[in-house]
Amino acid sequence: MKLTGRLAAAPDDFIRQEFLEPQFRHEVVHLLRWYVLIEKALLGEYRRLGVLSDAQAGRLAAALDGLTPDQLTAGAAGALSDIALAMEVEVGKALPEPVPAWHVDRSRNDLQACAQLLHGREQVSDIAVLAGQLAEVALERASHDVTSPMPGYTHLQAAQVVTPGFYLSAVAEHALRFSSRLLGTYDRINLSPLGAGPMAGQELAWDRNLLARAIGCQGPVPHALVAVASRDWLLDVAADIASAGTGFSRFLTDLMAWGSSAYGLVELPDELAGISAAMPQKKNYPLLERLRGRTGHLTAFYVDFASCQRNTPYSNMVEVSKEAGVHASTMFAATRSVLAGFTLVVEKLRWRTDRMRAAAEEDHFGGFSLANELTLRAGVPWRTAQVVAGRYVSAVLAGGNGHAGHGDPAALVAAALEAGHVLDDPGSYLTNSLDVDAQLRAKLSSGSTSPSSVAALLAEQRERLGVLREQWDERRAAVRDAIAATDASLLPGGAA
Amino acid sequence: MKLTGRLAAAPDDFIRQEFLEPQFRHEVVHLLRWYVLIEKALLGEYRRLGVLSDAQAGRLAAALDGLTPDQLTAGAAGALSDIALAMEVEVGKALPEPVPAWHVDRSRNDLQACAQLLHGREQVSDIAVLAGQLAEVALERASHDVTSPMPGYTHLQAAQVVTPGFYLSAVAEHALRFSSRLLGTYDRINLSPLGAGPMAGQELAWDRNLLARAIGCQGPVPHALVAVASRDWLLDVAADIASAGTGFSRFLTDLMAWGSSAYGLVELPDELAGISAAMPQKKNYPLLERLRGRTGHLTAFYVDFASCQRNTPYSNMVEVSKEAGVHASTMFAATRSVLAGFTLVVEKLRWRTDRMRAAAEEDHFGGFSLANELTLRAGVPWRTAQVVAGRYVSAVLAGGNGHAGHGDPAALVAAALEAGHVLDDPGSYLTNSLDVDAQLRAKLSSGSTSPSSVAALLAEQRERLGVLREQWDERRAAVRDAIAATDASLLPGGAA
Amino acid sequence: MKLTGRLAAAPDDFIRQEFLEPQFRHEVVHLLRWYVLIEKALLGEYRRLGVLSDAQAGRLAAALDGLTPDQLTAGAAGALSDIALAMEVEVGKALPEPVPAWHVDRSRNDLQACAQLLHGREQVSDIAVLAGQLAEVALERASHDVTSPMPGYTHLQAAQVVTPGFYLSAVAEHALRFSSRLLGTYDRINLSPLGAGPMAGQELAWDRNLLARAIGCQGPVPHALVAVASRDWLLDVAADIASAGTGFSRFLTDLMAWGSSAYGLVELPDELAGISAAMPQKKNYPLLERLRGRTGHLTAFYVDFASCQRNTPYSNMVEVSKEAGVHASTMFAATRSVLAGFTLVVEKLRWRTDRMRAAAEEDHFGGFSLANELTLRAGVPWRTAQVVAGRYVSAVLAGGNGHAGHGDPAALVAAALEAGHVLDDPGSYLTNSLDVDAQLRAKLSSGSTSPSSVAALLAEQRERLGVLREQWDERRAAVRDAIAATDASLLPGGAA
Amino acid sequence: MKLTGRLAAAPDDFIRQEFLEPQFRHEVVHLLRWYVLIEKALLGEYRRLGVLSDAQAGRLAAALDGLTPDQLTAGAAGALSDIALAMEVEVGKALPEPVPAWHVDRSRNDLQACAQLLHGREQVSDIAVLAGQLAEVALERASHDVTSPMPGYTHLQAAQVVTPGFYLSAVAEHALRFSSRLLGTYDRINLSPLGAGPMAGQELAWDRNLLARAIGCQGPVPHALVAVASRDWLLDVAADIASAGTGFSRFLTDLMAWGSSAYGLVELPDELAGISAAMPQKKNYPLLERLRGRTGHLTAFYVDFASCQRNTPYSNMVEVSKEAGVHASTMFAATRSVLAGFTLVVEKLRWRTDRMRAAAEEDHFGGFSLANELTLRAGVPWRTAQVVAGRYVSAVLAGGNGHAGHGDPAALVAAALEAGHVLDDPGSYLTNSLDVDAQLRAKLSSGSTSPSSVAALLAEQRERLGVLREQWDERRAAVRDAIAATDASLLPGGAA
Repeated sequence: MKLTGRLAAAPDDFIRQEFLEPQFRHEVVHLLRWYVLIEKALLGEYRRLGVLSDAQAGRLAAALDGLTPDQLTAGAAGALSDIALAMEVEVGKALPEPVPAWHVDRSRNDLQACAQLLHGREQVSDIAVLAGQLAEVALERASHDVTSPMPGYTHLQAAQVVTPGFYLSAVAEHALRFSSRLLGTYDRINLSPLGAGPMAGQELAWDRNLLARAIGCQGPVPHALVAVASRDWLLDVAADIASAGTGFSRFLTDLMAWGSSAYGLVELPDELAGISAAMPQKKNYPLLERLRGRTGHLTAFYVDFASCQRNTPYSNMVEVSKEAGVHASTMFAATRSVLAGFTLVVEKLRWRTDRMRAAAEEDHFGGFSLANELTLRAGVPWRTAQVVAGRYVSAVLAGGNGHAGHGDPAALVAAALEAGHVLDDPGSYLTNSLDVDAQLRAKLSSGSTSPSSVAALLAEQRERLGVLREQWDERRAAVRDAIAATDASLLPGGAA
Repeated sequence: MKLTGRLAAAPDDFIRQEFLEPQFRHEVVHLLRWYVLIEKALLGEYRRLGVLSDAQAGRLAAALDGLTPDQLTAGAAGALSDIALAMEVEVGKALPEPVPAWHVDRSRNDLQACAQLLHGREQVSDIAVLAGQLAEVALERASHDVTSPMPGYTHLQAAQVVTPGFYLSAVAEHALRFSSRLLGTYDRINLSPLGAGPMAGQELAWDRNLLARAIGCQGPVPHALVAVASRDWLLDVAADIASAGTGFSRFLTDLMAWGSSAYGLVELPDELAGISAAMPQKKNYPLLERLRGRTGHLTAFYVDFASCQRNTPYSNMVEVSKEAGVHASTMFAATRSVLAGFTLVVEKLRWRTDRMRAAAEEDHFGGFSLANELTLRAGVPWRTAQVVAGRYVSAVLAGGNGHAGHGDPAALVAAALEAGHVLDDPGSYLTNSLDVDAQLRAKLSSGSTSPSSVAALLAEQRERLGVLREQWDERRAAVRDAIAATDASLLPGGAA
Repeated sequence: MKLTGRLAAAPDDFIRQEFLEPQFRHEVVHLLRWYVLIEKALLGEYRRLGVLSDAQAGRLAAALDGLTPDQLTAGAAGALSDIALAMEVEVGKALPEPVPAWHVDRSRNDLQACAQLLHGREQVSDIAVLAGQLAEVALERASHDVTSPMPGYTHLQAAQVVTPGFYLSAVAEHALRFSSRLLGTYDRINLSPLGAGPMAGQELAWDRNLLARAIGCQGPVPHALVAVASRDWLLDVAADIASAGTGFSRFLTDLMAWGSSAYGLVELPDELAGISAAMPQKKNYPLLERLRGRTGHLTAFYVDFASCQRNTPYSNMVEVSKEAGVHASTMFAATRSVLAGFTLVVEKLRWRTDRMRAAAEEDHFGGFSLANELTLRAGVPWRTAQVVAGRYVSAVLAGGNGHAGHGDPAALVAAALEAGHVLDDPGSYLTNSLDVDAQLRAKLSSGSTSPSSVAALLAEQRERLGVLREQWDERRAAVRDAIAATDASLLPGGAA
Repeated sequence: MKLTGRLAAAPDDFIRQEFLEPQFRHEVVHLLRWYVLIEKALLGEYRRLGVLSDAQAGRLAAALDGLTPDQLTAGAAGALSDIALAMEVEVGKALPEPVPAWHVDRSRNDLQACAQLLHGREQVSDIAVLAGQLAEVALERASHDVTSPMPGYTHLQAAQVVTPGFYLSAVAEHALRFSSRLLGTYDRINLSPLGAGPMAGQELAWDRNLLARAIGCQGPVPHALVAVASRDWLLDVAADIASAGTGFSRFLTDLMAWGSSAYGLVELPDELAGISAAMPQKKNYPLLERLRGRTGHLTAFYVDFASCQRNTPYSNMVEVSKEAGVHASTMFAATRSVLAGFTLVVEKLRWRTDRMRAAAEEDHFGGFSLANELTLRAGVPWRTAQVVAGRYVSAVLAGGNGHAGHGDPAALVAAALEAGHVLDDPGSYLTNSLDVDAQLRAKLSSGSTSPSSVAALLAEQRERLGVLREQWDERRAAVRDAIAATDASLLPGGAA
């Protein structure tokens, strides 16, 4: 292929092997369908502008539809290993006669920027589906058990009584938040670079709004230079993913701890566990470790993109447009893996309610409730009430029985007296604080661990999930519809 | 202050010096006003719940208003260097009589989470104002010159003709995008953790919606554990800032290049420049270097927060709630510095239109236009037309005069003939391509570099800026109004 | 101060407040003594070159010694907030008569690069001392208990029997490795930039070796441009620190888990613990959380420096020389804090040997040993032996008593038989595997957990620590000696 | 394959597809030969310990030698997709009779840790070869031109006169430094984990020193837990690589600027350049952009490894041992690519000496020299001398001819007089400062830009390169020799 008016050597082997060919292989797999869509959108405009006839546009569209990855790969070397040129060459071969004006006034800069964006847009939308599935599974599993007490930990010490349902509802909340943030990002990035040319705009009267519509975008990137120079969309998506991943690493940290031999509160079925041959009592969870480790890559990918974009000129640079994004597909795959794997974990996790209850009853979670009652019913100042409750708990523990259910009204009377308060009916202050189920029910505030609060929250989350799903479905449908409309418009008689 | 029922040693000196005291100093400066607001919101609820009388709530509010940083600092040691406890102690001293029930059923977990968020919310809003000012200044400066040609570079090579107005409009676009993304973040994070207690919720019938409204939030964080465990808001804000910073580093890279002795296209006034004593012709721009370097910290801060949150339990951990955010204020200050400094640069930048035009005329930017005309008017296939244009340019350059304005119709005829095309009136194809001003005007697509496109875009950007400003003003007003309403409600007779 | 032949405006307020003044404040605190040392080294060379007389050099040295931070700060505004210029001005005031040739042929580029390096060198050396103290304390504590069995975990599941001494010896190993790596870095970076001038070298016959010696460096940076452009030393140091910090985060993760209520294997004294008022049984360890969180910053600082150096020209740039290193002191302080705090933790940690032993005896750690014996003594193929051991353990667990000490020879016979092996004297195979202390002793390989291996390793580590200390002491002494010699040489009659 | 005494489900498809199979594919390609070497080292010890006979060891060695990637891959599913187990199975098939005691007392933990290390060690050594080649080429090219003047830039402004040789010598310095740092790392990490077992050591009397020697290591990792838990070696290597990459990004930044149309000081041949069709005067350098971008990944890889290791337990975790290192091979490949590509650039770079000289003569670099002479010869105080020089340069520039070679003694006299100094023979002060070649020669200090200094430095660098090469050759030979010795020892009659 003759690409220049100047005699130029072919690219050095090093360049071909290290950059051009890997890029080509990647694009043929991931971007080809988007390049075809974009070319069709351009055909529509060429036709509208009178540069191409209906028939020419139709034949070009048909030729584009006929392109196959194998064919393009076979012709890559003859097209400088550039997919856009390879497509041009192969389409040319399939045409009954040349179409001289095809690609007039066109640039590869906005073309590549656009194809990358459309690929990224699809990935984001796929990831949102997975996040929705995670939320769905978490909500479903949460609803199965909003009453079994388990210790809730702060600073790694058992602190309050919670339930699996309460915890899984937090997982769902994180998934919903991720989906919601992604949605905002999707809407912000779904703008078409087409019509920006190499950086300064184009010379024909391209309608950038029509172009955008034809590829399912909300509109054009307003500024031609921004359209070709910026890869902010990748930073935005990567940041959403990295931050969500940090959250997942925290949930996985809990599950790893709770699944450890020291806690034994949860377990995964054998097919999701690793087994030691000679230590069969040992059930390792490499899946949890792998998933948590995998979230670590997500932070690194953000750093990767930012690092490669940093301190480059604000213009079209292959450094930013291609090299900086080399690991984008790896990031998307890792994200899908984390989401699918974590969903599997949530779905299959067995909560060992017996051990959970035993652990919850082992410690005194009622000190806070006791102090509340001392203040509200006996008028003991709050800070003093906490001291009294603390002294009471210490006394009971010193007595050797700190198990839930065991109360010692005399010790409470003594502790209160030491602080100058005389208590009548001391046993009445201990009722709630001694019963872990009562501890659960005592939490009245919205979003709390009480079964009724959790049930209400699950319902509200389900509603939010439904709304988010509709919003994502709309966006997916809009892309499908745009593709179909663009395809249809290029069929014989299809012009608007 | 007696804080526990168990005899405990005072914190070790190391803990005090390394963690507690620096934290205290930071919170007294940055968080005190938010702690006061939150305490007032809680007073409103205590009153509504009948836990405190109107008079008690009023007196507590007055005492809170009377707190000073100096007083708190003086009392820090006696309150475990914890600002919340220090406030409780000092308020207690200011009361005419004790209020035993104050702080019953309360936790410091949601309190701290909330104060940090309100501080962060204010910072985000301040940063948005600065981003708006940058956009404003960029638009204003852009409108001053949408006609002076300068080279636009791709791959660091002069490629097309653009203008200062075109470029500055891209700067404005970046600032608008930042502001817009921050707005989405603001709305997502402006949720109140209050009422979540230590992690599992609270026991009194707190109305979390009323609490949220009293501190200017959209509503409560739906889930109690999420409310105290998550610091996603900091990741969200930091990612927005880091990504915007990466963009700024790119614009600054351009300005640094253009201000270099090799380009000489822009300059800054002496007060923004560094001067070499013995080389007075040398005008350094440490300001540009400093600003670009400063954007690098912003990426690191995101890594910092993510790194410190990573693989921690999803619960209240001082590791996440405090240590991970230790550099948040430094990040906010660096962001303000970058925005203010870059605004100053945009405002004071002098575009050396003479050198810009000379540079623009030095090279042949018209090859693309020439190829367009060959295709559209002479039916030369596009790829061939580019080869012809290239050959023509090569011939002209070989002839020794590649300056804009100089055309060589004979060379064009020869180049076309070599490709098998006979051209009539060859000079007519060269008109546009030889005139850099015509090159500018030739760009018709929206968002392009032509003066009219830029003018249209500037108007549209100004409109967007106006809308964004209104949106930010609404949010700032909402916070102010919430504070005023909460204050007023606690004055004598102020209860709703 | 007149600094240029061209009329220049004073720096803009923004530049002063954001960059110059903070830099000045930092340098006056951290770099002044190094600037003084460097100026003295230069004086020695001026004298040797005959540019200054002995008397002039002596008076300048005395004036340099008389400089105070307050005096310099007072004069900062008059010296462009540049510490080197401020020193020149204040020294000039202190001289009885002008010394015209002072500072001839000098540049601030190599001066600043040098002062920063000397500061960094000192920090590295201080940090090495702390790392040595950590190793010392870890070795000392390790030697106290090399026999108490505790579970060793892999994949968070109890897997083998280890001891506190074994674990602390790993901590010491990490500290030794850090110190050793830092030493290599120290020796690599301890090269003097002096004599490089602005980037291309100097015009007088400066002896760069003498200059290097006078400030305690091994020699000069070989290349003038590298001397002023590179800040590799900061990357090297920061990487060593960040990586060591990642290791510390892992040890702290163990200690946090072991100190949790679920494990209860270690505890810290009250002065290093956090106490909950109403839950006195709860002992939080904010110190561990803070330290682990603090290690996270160390990774971020490396990213910070790399990010700010990235894609800058390889020349003297204030972006790299100053802005990129703005957080270096914060990093050094955080590193010292992590080391001192972790040393405190290791020193004060109480190992709860009763709970450790109970935990170690709870699970079957002997499966591996049992399989070994089956293979070695009964010729059961290794993989089969593991299956047999596993079946045996399963059978015992199914029988309800998996506690160490309890053996069931009949079950072993049955398990072996199922695999086609007939065992004589089955009880003899169980001896080692049932006794956790025997499990410890059975580990024969060097570096293993057996008391004798640990004791041998501790001795060897102590030796390595001794060697490292000597090496660091030599380096610290070399710097002290160089300073003293340089000081002495400038006293009256001090010239070599 | 029966791996456990407990009935276990096969791993879930998700685990197989996402983790096990990719890991297997990676290990078969990259780690197989190291696994074979390690197994042979273990055979030697089994024989020495009398666990295996000579004949058994010999047959096992032969079977190990016969393993092929295809065979292992075919059997992967039957071996839990674990390469070590797959090897065991396939070796078993190849044996004439079973060897029951094979693999007794063995663990996969130290095995995997060891195989990964040996792979990494080889990569480091390969990278060092490439770094040496870069240094070689840079030195060679540097020696071709140590006399052609070109501007040296500080703060992007032309500041001093340098030469291609001077600059390339800095490139060589960076490559040498990288190699030297890597060598220190190599020696620190080349320790064998073998004999550590799962974490606590092993029960047979393995000689860890012999094992280490058999695989070419300096000795064993001293501590068993460190041996299996730590992946510090990857952090160390990644940090060396990332930091070196940051330096390369800076050199590439210079070359990109100098190759831009605005500078035009260097160019690459057509086969290393990108060509624009219609703008043939435009020579893009995507190679430079790609390489610079590629260095950005190197920083991200360090973050990746650190991020995934962070806050994990210090024990064997698949999270650290496998997932955290998933991108290690990608990092090694990227590093090789950067080094090979940059070497190609340095080799093929054409320095446009005409344009360099023209640029060097365009500006006044002599102000500094002039000030030096005024101080040294006319006794003008240094700071005043700089002002006089500056005024002189300003005057000359105002006169319209600032080109090198043009002097104006009268203007110098006037400038000096304004500062109160009377100059005799003013022309004599201007000689050096007006001649760019003289400017070069005037730099006397070692490491400076003068042709003689550069020549001396090149010789010294060549010597250092020679020493480094020998050191690397020794290490490569040591590994080869160890492999050969281990192989030989297992041949019939080969036992020591």
